[in-house]
Amino acid sequence: MGRLKITHSSASITPALEGTKVTVGGFVKSIRDLGGIRFFVLYDMEGELQVTASKATTRPEVFTKIGSLTPESTVVVEGRVKVAEQAPGGVEIVPERIEVLSQAVVPLPLDPSGRIKSTLETRLGARVLDLRHPVRRAIFKIRHITLDAIRKFLSSNGFLEVHTPKIVATATESGAALFPVAYFEREAFLSQSPQLYKEILTGCFQKVFEIGPIFRAEEFNTPKHLNETISVDIEAAFADYEEVMQLLEKLIAAVFQEVGERAREELKIVGVKLSTPKIPFERLTYREALELLEKKGVKVPWGE
Amino acid sequence: MGRLKITHSSASITPALEGTKVTVGGFVKSIRDLGGIRFFVLYDMEGELQVTASKATTRPEVFTKIGSLTPESTVVVEGRVKVAEQAPGGVEIVPERIEVLSQAVVPLPLDPSGRIKSTLETRLGARVLDLRHPVRRAIFKIRHITLDAIRKFLSSNGFLEVHTPKIVATATESGAALFPVAYFEREAFLSQSPQLYKEILTGCFQKVFEIGPIFRAEEFNTPKHLNETISVDIEAAFADYEEVMQLLEKLIAAVFQEVGERAREELKIVGVKLSTPKIPFERLTYREALELLEKKGVKVPWGE
Repeated sequence: MGRLKITHSSASITPALEGTKVTVGGFVKSIRDLGGIRFFVLYDMEGELQVTASKATTRPEVFTKIGSLTPESTVVVEGRVKVAEQAPGGVEIVPERIEVLSQAVVPLPLDPSGRIKSTLETRLGARVLDLRHPVRRAIFKIRHITLDAIRKFLSSNGFLEVHTPKIVATATESGAALFPVAYFEREAFLSQSPQLYKEILTGCFQKVFEIGPIFRAEEFNTPKHLNETISVDIEAAFADYEEVMQLLEKLIAAVFQEVGERAREELKIVGVKLSTPKIPFERLTYREALELLEKKGVKVPWGE
Repeated sequence: MGRLKITHSSASITPALEGTKVTVGGFVKSIRDLGGIRFFVLYDMEGELQVTASKATTRPEVFTKIGSLTPESTVVVEGRVKVAEQAPGGVEIVPERIEVLSQAVVPLPLDPSGRIKSTLETRLGARVLDLRHPVRRAIFKIRHITLDAIRKFLSSNGFLEVHTPKIVATATESGAALFPVAYFEREAFLSQSPQLYKEILTGCFQKVFEIGPIFRAEEFNTPKHLNETISVDIEAAFADYEEVMQLLEKLIAAVFQEVGERAREELKIVGVKLSTPKIPFERLTYREALELLEKKGVKVPWGE
């Protein structure tokens, strides 16, 4: 626990703060030593900041500490904001105190910048570092914004957010394999869908949704299936399939729209261009879908 | 599935819509038959609406159908809006078509209005009806608004929403009992806290929160403990206990404030008066807390 308390995030430091004393915290990205000047880039959840120390004006203790920093170390820096056109964001921090909360060991087990590729095994073995990869960080942020957009859309369309039990007594959808749980003296299962609970709830609230984990005990052979995942699940009384399709079309368009606006930077990082789909979506009958697949060389028997 | 499509919620029908044809859906609350006039109150998630039919002007088929309605039946009503000062909300519906989607059997297993008390067993046995009790409905709405307020506060304070695995390999907090899960050929457990995952995530995102299920296999003897519950869990890097307390104080005050405003009606129904607590909260040391308990006749040994 550092004695220095963080006062600002990287993104909140602007040229308007010139001369102000601030404390920022984050991870060391890159370090350069030009002899008389040492600087490093610190990054946090919101962005990056350059910290620049000149040997002539910095306390020797602080100057030395910068020299011994390693990439990805966790540091807190107290200093003054200085306008610097060549720095990212047009500002830098002139450090007065530096606290190293955690010194990263070199060499790192993987390169969080992603320039040097790592195997999945290495990435999972050093997941903390792996999560610092710009693409991984962007994915988490896009996910946050997506869930927020879904909730906003559903709430403003009269849906109530609910949470249903995950430990259940029986299967809710036939055919799905379940994970057994030892529930004290009895056998229970992990829920593979909120289905039955949602149906009961619509008997009172009409429109409900749940965003929560579901569990499927299938032994999948593809990397596209997970045994545990977060589902977005809605249920509406008085609605036929046409109304449900219309609602979901609107939901998808609203989410694309909002994510496209709010996650502009993150989408650039992951290399995805979102274009909000037009409503109504093209509709295919089951037969048309089978025919389309067959044209592409995939033959699915009717009813499979 | 009804052929009539709902166009309005009860709350959206105002005197301004006089003469407009609308379709509403919901549950039958009360029915009165005055011979030449039959009316019933229909309620949905947002409120109540009176449906009034006069024998002289209503199609006989519709008039007869109203006569055979039972309380808590699910109906869809198409009709015209009519300003009626004596009706709740100042409007009523003059019905032209009525569709009974589900006719409730009389007598009902319990009284959803709550005037006649039921045992817990009866309530759980007819949970659909039990959920229609005004207090139960209010609780679900307050819960929705509370979660929304928590998310808004945390997101605007730089926290990222995450979801962590619920099927885990080991215990995260010593002492807590776990539910074993048969995970294919291996033994796994249900997560009793997102702790370890949150800690890893703060090594990249600094501030995260999760709202999701946690599982505790303790055999509780009180009705205040649950083996499965939804936890609101935050984790912040660079924060000491003082900063965490300050954040949580602000969170609680913000949620009280917002719920107090947005759930005014529902709080009245459950009979709760919320007054937003003042910040900072009174602080007690551990020793002071023990002394206070002892004064109230509860002796807890140091460290228990």
